[in-house]
Amino acid sequence: MTLRKLLAAFLPESQLGAGASVLDGHSSDLSYHEPCHPDAVVYAESTEDVSRILAWANAEVVPVTAFGAGTSLEGHVIPVAGGISLDLSRLDRVLALRPADLQADVQAGTLRSELNRVAAREGLWFTVDPGADATLGGMAATNASGTTTVRYGGMRANVLALEVVLADGSVIRPGSRTVKSSAGYDLKSLFVGSEGTLGVITQLTVRLAGIPEHTVALRGSFPSLDSACQCAATLAAAGVGVQRLELLDAPTIAAVNAYKGSAFAPAPTLFIEVAGTKAAVAGDAATVADVANWEGCIELVEAHEAEARSRLWEARHHVLFALLNESPGKVHRATDVCVPVSELAGAIAHARQLADDLRLNAAIVAHAGDGNYHVLLMFDPEDPDERGRVDRLSTEIVGWALARGGTCTGEHGIGLGKIDHLEQEHSDLIPLFARLKESFDPNGILNPGKVIRA
Amino acid sequence: MTLRKLLAAFLPESQLGAGASVLDGHSSDLSYHEPCHPDAVVYAESTEDVSRILAWANAEVVPVTAFGAGTSLEGHVIPVAGGISLDLSRLDRVLALRPADLQADVQAGTLRSELNRVAAREGLWFTVDPGADATLGGMAATNASGTTTVRYGGMRANVLALEVVLADGSVIRPGSRTVKSSAGYDLKSLFVGSEGTLGVITQLTVRLAGIPEHTVALRGSFPSLDSACQCAATLAAAGVGVQRLELLDAPTIAAVNAYKGSAFAPAPTLFIEVAGTKAAVAGDAATVADVANWEGCIELVEAHEAEARSRLWEARHHVLFALLNESPGKVHRATDVCVPVSELAGAIAHARQLADDLRLNAAIVAHAGDGNYHVLLMFDPEDPDERGRVDRLSTEIVGWALARGGTCTGEHGIGLGKIDHLEQEHSDLIPLFARLKESFDPNGILNPGKVIRA
Repeated sequence: MTLRKLLAAFLPESQLGAGASVLDGHSSDLSYHEPCHPDAVVYAESTEDVSRILAWANAEVVPVTAFGAGTSLEGHVIPVAGGISLDLSRLDRVLALRPADLQADVQAGTLRSELNRVAAREGLWFTVDPGADATLGGMAATNASGTTTVRYGGMRANVLALEVVLADGSVIRPGSRTVKSSAGYDLKSLFVGSEGTLGVITQLTVRLAGIPEHTVALRGSFPSLDSACQCAATLAAAGVGVQRLELLDAPTIAAVNAYKGSAFAPAPTLFIEVAGTKAAVAGDAATVADVANWEGCIELVEAHEAEARSRLWEARHHVLFALLNESPGKVHRATDVCVPVSELAGAIAHARQLADDLRLNAAIVAHAGDGNYHVLLMFDPEDPDERGRVDRLSTEIVGWALARGGTCTGEHGIGLGKIDHLEQEHSDLIPLFARLKESFDPNGILNPGKVIRA
Repeated sequence: MTLRKLLAAFLPESQLGAGASVLDGHSSDLSYHEPCHPDAVVYAESTEDVSRILAWANAEVVPVTAFGAGTSLEGHVIPVAGGISLDLSRLDRVLALRPADLQADVQAGTLRSELNRVAAREGLWFTVDPGADATLGGMAATNASGTTTVRYGGMRANVLALEVVLADGSVIRPGSRTVKSSAGYDLKSLFVGSEGTLGVITQLTVRLAGIPEHTVALRGSFPSLDSACQCAATLAAAGVGVQRLELLDAPTIAAVNAYKGSAFAPAPTLFIEVAGTKAAVAGDAATVADVANWEGCIELVEAHEAEARSRLWEARHHVLFALLNESPGKVHRATDVCVPVSELAGAIAHARQLADDLRLNAAIVAHAGDGNYHVLLMFDPEDPDERGRVDRLSTEIVGWALARGGTCTGEHGIGLGKIDHLEQEHSDLIPLFARLKESFDPNGILNPGKVIRA
């Protein structure tokens, strides 16, 4: 009997995906990894559904890969072992908003945009911004972060509590609604970043923040990567209200100019956003200018109104388009190395030199306050040589970073693509990871092939 | 053969504690829990020492309880099962200071004051302030926090990486020198707060912050607990540079007045510290005044110079002395409930009413921005009735908090004293805690009797 028929014994037809397009839609994410079809797609509509499905799959030893918005970047949601793609997108409700506590309870399939829409009614927002409109459950599963992490932290810092369904179908609720707790082992932090391999997140209590009343955007061009990174590090350390601190290297600016016909100075450039009360922002923007000038900033542009701020950020937002435009028909892949901030300038210079040496078309963007940078690479999947050069760049920049206290992934997670790098980075921890996996998922049904080898 | 003689086979005499006073010094902490002597005290002088001792103890199934400065508040360091008290106080070196990354590497036995002394040379400080001059390893083991957590977070947020010796003597290094990482399961957060029951922390990489150039202290009296707590919640949410936000309830202020002969308004009182650049502090102090006035603040006093700030904080610092003075010969015990900030005023009012009903001498102090409050209670250990009333208060306020999303411990940890409360708070997690303990410490040698039942 097919898996779908077996599931139909205890799930209504409306919760079983049908047709090739549904299977296609659950075979890939936004990454360069090979698609792979699940044997069946199931739409969960409640925690109880997830519990029943996992209990059954555990007894039958059927793989289950959770699926949210499909925006992962290392193949996390690709069901490489077949089995069930457990789609959580119907669990899409904001269950509670507690403005006085700056908290919301959301179902795991809730999109970030939906939470922000509801929170905005109370003047609040959810601060983690990975770019994509991901689900909150997926963002927690990969410990996502992004452009605002320099100020607000990533998912682990912004998730207070979880509801998780374990492999055997039991439901647990690690964490607390309090902003701090020392009550027992920190299972909440263990599930955040576990990529669906230890349990399936069905609900989250997250922190919110007040929407800043005033925002100023600044764009500064610098004489060198060193000076731009030093400016970013100083601002991140100063504790001023900088909530975004993005860096593009000079060739990336040049690529944007070529694509847009713009005339941005082809120099390392920081995109900075300062937010808070009007008075605080004025003070902080002045601090940004002081620090930037101290570091030899060539040109600093400031924008206050929403439209002007959007224009100011344009170069940053067009990086991927510029790259795609340069390389029609190619596939893109993003590295995700993170280093101590003092190593960032060196890391980017090394990566750029390597891309040149390997004749790779690359854009480099960094969350400069966190030491996290992405090399966006275009390659032809049918060209094994080019593909090999991309692999080589990725491997070499990870090695460079690990030798300097860095990590192979700042925010994308391990998924399918970084298992080798994880073993290189934390060889001492791999036996413990395996023991944890064995303890939480003895039959190996939960997202097999991700984080650690199946 | 005695344990000491067995240890002398592989450890020099200089690392073996001798005499009754050494055993006494390792039999208790700052809590009300019954002292209990270890069978032997061992002073580790290196990670290799800790590794050798644990490997031996694991093979021989001898309990090992790590000991730092002995400042724990729930009996964490009391070796209730006998065996070895593993004293880490000789591992007291700041190994590296990396000002450009705002980081330090320290040995686990390093005192907080020592780290701050070394960091101050570079204009930096370690921000977690639990009051006591604890060791960094001990603070990590209990996930300590304190008066500055409202701004900087507690230990879990400020520890980037650890060196941990496991029960079998193997050494692992979870975490990273980067400010964020999504590389594998978060073992760093698991060991932080594990109270020496999963491994022994021997080294830490911690975050530092710049010493603020300017500090202002404010003390405000409020017409009600509600208004004082609302003021605190608003300030914590506003993201201004408030780095301390402490609350005393009216009877506690009255007790201080009685002890000091002072004339503070006997009303709920907030002690606030704002720090940053001179300009930022001026703006933030004005915001504090605005919010306080909006909440009906009766009197707001501001102090700028160091001496005046100390005087302003005097009432807060004299709470314990006032209490001890009122109850000569008695022992004190501190509860550690934490609730969502919107519940704090209700929690304190409930605890105060209960203390009155139970005829208990109580002071109440709160880290108001975090929703964490301590009821400091005096009791005669020889008086079972009074002791029973203290137990009853503790149990009732925990029950009240748990019904409202709170936790039994915001920062002191579980130790010996809160195992029942932990089971009440996280009954669904206890089987997982037990599985983790079994997985990391199959022979049960690591601090038996703490966090979970032996």
